[in-house]
Amino acid sequence: MKSIRVFAPASVANLGCGFDVMGMVMDAVGDLMCVGIDEGLGLDIENRSGVPLPANVEDNVITPAIMAFLASYGKPMKVKVIIESKIHPGSGIGSSAASSSAAVFALNELLGKPFSIEKLVEFAMEGEKLISGGVAHADNVAPCLMGGVVLIRGYKPLDMIKLPVPPGFHCSVAHPDIMVSTKMAREVMPKEIPVRDAVRQWGNVGGLVAGLTLGDIDLVGRSMVDIVAEPCRKSFIPGFEILRDKVLKDGALAMNIAGSGPSVFALSKDDATAVKVAEIMKEHFAFLGIDSRVYTASVSDRGARVAE
Amino acid sequence: MKSIRVFAPASVANLGCGFDVMGMVMDAVGDLMCVGIDEGLGLDIENRSGVPLPANVEDNVITPAIMAFLASYGKPMKVKVIIESKIHPGSGIGSSAASSSAAVFALNELLGKPFSIEKLVEFAMEGEKLISGGVAHADNVAPCLMGGVVLIRGYKPLDMIKLPVPPGFHCSVAHPDIMVSTKMAREVMPKEIPVRDAVRQWGNVGGLVAGLTLGDIDLVGRSMVDIVAEPCRKSFIPGFEILRDKVLKDGALAMNIAGSGPSVFALSKDDATAVKVAEIMKEHFAFLGIDSRVYTASVSDRGARVAE
Repeated sequence: MKSIRVFAPASVANLGCGFDVMGMVMDAVGDLMCVGIDEGLGLDIENRSGVPLPANVEDNVITPAIMAFLASYGKPMKVKVIIESKIHPGSGIGSSAASSSAAVFALNELLGKPFSIEKLVEFAMEGEKLISGGVAHADNVAPCLMGGVVLIRGYKPLDMIKLPVPPGFHCSVAHPDIMVSTKMAREVMPKEIPVRDAVRQWGNVGGLVAGLTLGDIDLVGRSMVDIVAEPCRKSFIPGFEILRDKVLKDGALAMNIAGSGPSVFALSKDDATAVKVAEIMKEHFAFLGIDSRVYTASVSDRGARVAE
Repeated sequence: MKSIRVFAPASVANLGCGFDVMGMVMDAVGDLMCVGIDEGLGLDIENRSGVPLPANVEDNVITPAIMAFLASYGKPMKVKVIIESKIHPGSGIGSSAASSSAAVFALNELLGKPFSIEKLVEFAMEGEKLISGGVAHADNVAPCLMGGVVLIRGYKPLDMIKLPVPPGFHCSVAHPDIMVSTKMAREVMPKEIPVRDAVRQWGNVGGLVAGLTLGDIDLVGRSMVDIVAEPCRKSFIPGFEILRDKVLKDGALAMNIAGSGPSVFALSKDDATAVKVAEIMKEHFAFLGIDSRVYTASVSDRGARVAE
């Protein structure tokens, strides 16, 4: 059996204003996976990560992603996946995206790169479809595979733009030990919003993209404001506003909900600030009697890759 | 009496997806105005342009703009304005913005530039407030004064970002001889929109800003799509969809309603395409028995300026 070990990073979707259209890689945190191929048929997924995952192979996001890959590749084969370490599911930092991205990235490497990275995003989106009621999002899988910050301009056809990231950008994430399902987070969202609010949101999306592409760090910070999803979702996260005030005071450029939560993330100009911000996040939740995992990572240009 | 002659260009607001947050200068078309100051008090506006304007000085957009300037300057004076030539009002290419911008720009020059261009935008916005029921928009006055393409990220506080424009960009505008008031154009807009549509729109705003800043011309073209205002307003413009199909076929990157209409504008990669597109527009309306004025202009970096 020919095999390869790959790493696929965590990712943060939405970035405040960019609800459903933007995502950012969070390097240094991610999934480590060994994927092997052989003649024959079938898919076997072995979970050695210690993180609870669906027992049935059909319920794992890896399965539809691999199926989409192989259907497009046109040659069936036997695939064996060993999940060595895994982002905690339900964290809001792209756990499912990392799994499905790692799997298709590994297959592509093993087969001599028959597909572009953009095509791999499409395959990995099939995994996202499985866990989000039939809607395939790219805002985690795109940055996970492509690295950096990715704008999903549209889906018909899929149009992804990788944006430059000012040097030094670091991200802090806290995953508090509270349960907010993606389904619940979607249900609190209104179906319609005032045009006035939509205009403010797209002004900020424009500002965020301009800030990133022009290297205007302050503009990035003041554009990362979400007036659409956050007002509905922030009550799931105890002391959200208080925590934001604290981290902004200590130098973070912005703090928002990571994806649909319950994780929160903050962006900082440098590593030292990001580390301090992560400590503040940890303390904040501890003070409220809530355990949390915290991470800091550079907003690297690198996405999924062969493990060193 | 100390006097100066200034030119303030036309401008196109919205640029498709950027409803209420983006505007673009349209150089070579604009207002030519002579402004003089003297000791004493009072404002006199003389219209030599041949274009019909309000008879009462209080009803002219120039008046609140000059009043705001002088209130901030802190020293009253006598101001005389002679409008030499003028963009046709109601065209949707920033006629009122050009008037109020020219007036405050001229005053600033005459007084030794006490204010920044950004501050002049705020004064000129008072003119916009007069004609839009108390709402002060910056999406025409900002590009008129600053040049290029301007993103209005937000209003509280006013946050304007001048975006780079790929070289060669030219704009074609047709102003058909039909009447669509800004008020009517506002009234057909819904108060609320589906989140799904808002997300598509802000994906396109992000794409447009990325296309401009990264110099990706095709991305600019495919992002200039408006699914919010255009569906409500396009029926005011006879054969809008047919015309768009024609100009895209002949090389335009995108065609949309200019501001709230009834003018339409198209963006092209070069002057020759823009000229051809303008001819197609002229023919289209002529075929429907509608007279039109057409213009082509470079999307210049220059805004209001001292007339040569």
